[in-house]
Amino acid sequence: MKIVIAPDSFKESLSAKAVCECIERGFKVVFPDAEYHHLPLADGGEGTVEALTQGRKARLMRTEVSDPIGKKVWANWALLDNDKTALIEIAAASGLALLAPEDRNPNITSSYGTGELIRTALDQGVTKILLGLGGSATNDAGAGIVQALGGKLLSHTGTELQVGASALTHLAKIDLSQQHPRCSEVEFIVACDVSNPLTGQRGASHVFGRQKGASSEMINALDAAIHHFAQLSIPILGTDHRHTPGFGAAGGTPLGLSLLFDITIKPGIDMILDELNADHIMQDASLMITGEGRMDTQTLQGKTPFGVALRANQKGIPVIAIAGSLGKELDPLYTHFNGLFASVRAPQSLDSALSEAEVNITSSARNVAAMLKLGAVINK
Amino acid sequence: MKIVIAPDSFKESLSAKAVCECIERGFKVVFPDAEYHHLPLADGGEGTVEALTQGRKARLMRTEVSDPIGKKVWANWALLDNDKTALIEIAAASGLALLAPEDRNPNITSSYGTGELIRTALDQGVTKILLGLGGSATNDAGAGIVQALGGKLLSHTGTELQVGASALTHLAKIDLSQQHPRCSEVEFIVACDVSNPLTGQRGASHVFGRQKGASSEMINALDAAIHHFAQLSIPILGTDHRHTPGFGAAGGTPLGLSLLFDITIKPGIDMILDELNADHIMQDASLMITGEGRMDTQTLQGKTPFGVALRANQKGIPVIAIAGSLGKELDPLYTHFNGLFASVRAPQSLDSALSEAEVNITSSARNVAAMLKLGAVINK
Repeated sequence: MKIVIAPDSFKESLSAKAVCECIERGFKVVFPDAEYHHLPLADGGEGTVEALTQGRKARLMRTEVSDPIGKKVWANWALLDNDKTALIEIAAASGLALLAPEDRNPNITSSYGTGELIRTALDQGVTKILLGLGGSATNDAGAGIVQALGGKLLSHTGTELQVGASALTHLAKIDLSQQHPRCSEVEFIVACDVSNPLTGQRGASHVFGRQKGASSEMINALDAAIHHFAQLSIPILGTDHRHTPGFGAAGGTPLGLSLLFDITIKPGIDMILDELNADHIMQDASLMITGEGRMDTQTLQGKTPFGVALRANQKGIPVIAIAGSLGKELDPLYTHFNGLFASVRAPQSLDSALSEAEVNITSSARNVAAMLKLGAVINK
Repeated sequence: MKIVIAPDSFKESLSAKAVCECIERGFKVVFPDAEYHHLPLADGGEGTVEALTQGRKARLMRTEVSDPIGKKVWANWALLDNDKTALIEIAAASGLALLAPEDRNPNITSSYGTGELIRTALDQGVTKILLGLGGSATNDAGAGIVQALGGKLLSHTGTELQVGASALTHLAKIDLSQQHPRCSEVEFIVACDVSNPLTGQRGASHVFGRQKGASSEMINALDAAIHHFAQLSIPILGTDHRHTPGFGAAGGTPLGLSLLFDITIKPGIDMILDELNADHIMQDASLMITGEGRMDTQTLQGKTPFGVALRANQKGIPVIAIAGSLGKELDPLYTHFNGLFASVRAPQSLDSALSEAEVNITSSARNVAAMLKLGAVINK
């Protein structure tokens, strides 16, 4: 019996790797001879680099680039796969967390620094780039990335625009003739967990603008600016991306990216599963076990266990989740999970539950395994 | 598939009957066609009358008798089985809870009132008496019961002794010639969850005397008094009961009882299982499910789930427990239970866990059932 253990970390208590070990330990009491495969995961946020570098050569990189308002910042990124793949997170160079509240102004914040990281990766010779969206301070529809990679955004008078979203109002022409020569040579995967369109009421500016510092008036102007950018991109792209699902992520970053790269947008967990060759590992598996510190209806919003469950569902592999704790309303999850277990063992404080996580996960896994074994006997 | 659901109540939240219903509801989602049998239980304490009267004619009775220090008290008891069986608890007439702390004096407290209840039951024509020990205020080795039922405890001068333990020091002769004529006509089951002997360091006086109000000196005198009573009983009983396991329960009550009745001592849960004809109900069962509000290593001290597990173990029926919460150390329980599940779903307050018990037990049961079903598929 082949069992694939594919959890996220349990935040504040155990890494995904440690969770794998607990689950295997519990299962092994009951199924000592099963074949266990560990697939410690992350959903594109915290823990992603760790998840993607498991068992592979990886180099953590640190490059000085522009932050969202043009100051210098050291941004972390990673080279995987013998330097063939770059893993970049937009938050590293263009993140909201880099700015003091008073500097959060999406009229001027730019994704330029992320473009610099991409340029560095291209210069290093990578053939694949993985870019995680999420946590950006920008609303420039990726204009900064275009500018950092040699694209020219020109006004009526032919001068180059300033960086930032509000400058896009003056955009008259997009000249990509001097873009980085390696743009067309790389596979470009964008990890994104929202399906919002670029513009409109559900678009980048209206939904995410306020948290980046925009006032109500500013939001309308931002929406108009990237609407204009999108319209001028149509002749180049052959497509109107204003309503494409996912293009509203990270202030519209996918638009700028798609001017330069042939991008593929995936949920973060899918990018990670693909990079880890999960389909291969799952082949002939009898059972998948996933989990996360907390599971509830939000799990269905692109969290790791849901990504694992969808993959397992497609392949007809049963999938069980062992969570730290469960929400009260679980019905929507049963469509995707064969069973849902909380490892917490008593009414107790969060601190106590976190500190006991290792023991409790192991114990839950053991009991789940015991039921699976018993089931073979009693079902007559 | 026949499934027997046999839990105790979840204290402060759900009756045993309600727990049965939750477990069935959860299981039925997965196994709609299984045959479910409910066996709501108690371990001899709270809930025992309810457990024993399920589906049978029962009459709650109320009789005025002597409390442990001779005052009048209304004691509750029950007639089961078309008035053929009496269920009496020693705590009703002779309980520690009936006395103010300053009245707790095991030199003089007596089981006389319990004897009056037994006499009332005999007068009503019962053919079986179930007596629950536990919570008594007495240390008189059942002398009061003997006295209430017509037995004479005489001094050297041939006068009848006062009630209470210290009077037993003057005991010279036991005359049972005028005992209640129906004593030999009834089956007499004593439910008792301790295995202490009558006398000595592990005996009634030394182990339970202090909680009944005895000082250290008094304890030695009490032990000597019932030791003397036991010795004078040997010619009648043909046995020296000073070291018989269980005779130390309820201040030595089994000694006095055995002078009048052919008693059978059982753990409370076993008495209840037998009265409910559990062996018959368990016949051909594929699975037993039990549980209690809290399960931990103390469960092995005669609690309901342990009694159910032992019975299931004997018969080779798998047994699963769904508890409200579980203790941290569970290893000793795995010898007896195939699986142990806590229904609590998150780190939460006890209040919140109690108020959600119904939902959480149902959900746990559903998930356990799902694993049993899945087990039949994946075990190859």
